[in-house]
Amino acid sequence: MEPRISLITLGVTDLARARRFYEALGWRGQKVEETVFFQAGGLGLVLWGREKLARDSGREAGRAGGFGGIVLAHNVRSREEVDALLGQAEQAGGRVTKSAEASPHGFYSGAFADPDGHPWEVAHNPGFPLAEDGTLTLPDFDTL
Amino acid sequence: MEPRISLITLGVTDLARARRFYEALGWRGQKVEETVFFQAGGLGLVLWGREKLARDSGREAGRAGGFGGIVLAHNVRSREEVDALLGQAEQAGGRVTKSAEASPHGFYSGAFADPDGHPWEVAHNPGFPLAEDGTLTLPDFDTL
Repeated sequence: MEPRISLITLGVTDLARARRFYEALGWRGQKVEETVFFQAGGLGLVLWGREKLARDSGREAGRAGGFGGIVLAHNVRSREEVDALLGQAEQAGGRVTKSAEASPHGFYSGAFADPDGHPWEVAHNPGFPLAEDGTLTLPDFDTL
Repeated sequence: MEPRISLITLGVTDLARARRFYEALGWRGQKVEETVFFQAGGLGLVLWGREKLARDSGREAGRAGGFGGIVLAHNVRSREEVDALLGQAEQAGGRVTKSAEASPHGFYSGAFADPDGHPWEVAHNPGFPLAEDGTLTLPDFDTL
């Protein structure tokens, strides 16, 4: 298995609402039948019905809206961008679940949930520099 | 918000077990305190305690092991690779939750759950070509 991810699919209960939310944050989706695809760097972020997504993976859909055990993070280049994005997410119909706060090593982050409860961390982390195109290369921690 | 994802963090109940699983599939992690980081193309895949991850996002951790509403997909270049990876995931301690099957448009996919129940689709999709470095660029669906 090559160490890479091709798609991240978020199960949603209202496709139009979920699309509106991400488009309000600046993403541009393509709708194909009952699926919305967003290009996200070198992979695709996909919105699809939660029940169908579960069935397609051979799983029971269970309860929507709870913590699913996976958190997506969007790192930005400054603390100001963290604050701005949390505000934007709230305005777009998300819910800020953790206000931004500073941690050791210059780390500054908060979190929001999208309309289906999918969690996003928004972080400024000087230890994980972003390339101009937004890709993130982990440091070699042994040399830090 | 730029359309990109910096990190995907999987909440786990046994960090060593989760790391062993991904390393058995060929990933190489770096452990930093109670976290394991894997470089995954232009982003990082991270393993961290489920309870801590939930708390850090301002959420209740809830029940582990159920369907969390997010599916990661790993696309490969042939049907044979789909079958091989599902077999490898099972041998490594995962669970095949959907055997590989063919769908229209040449699509061929199956799914496994990692030891914490996080779902992965494994797919060969001729409509979503992979670059040599594994990055996936969505087609312009209007022109298909």
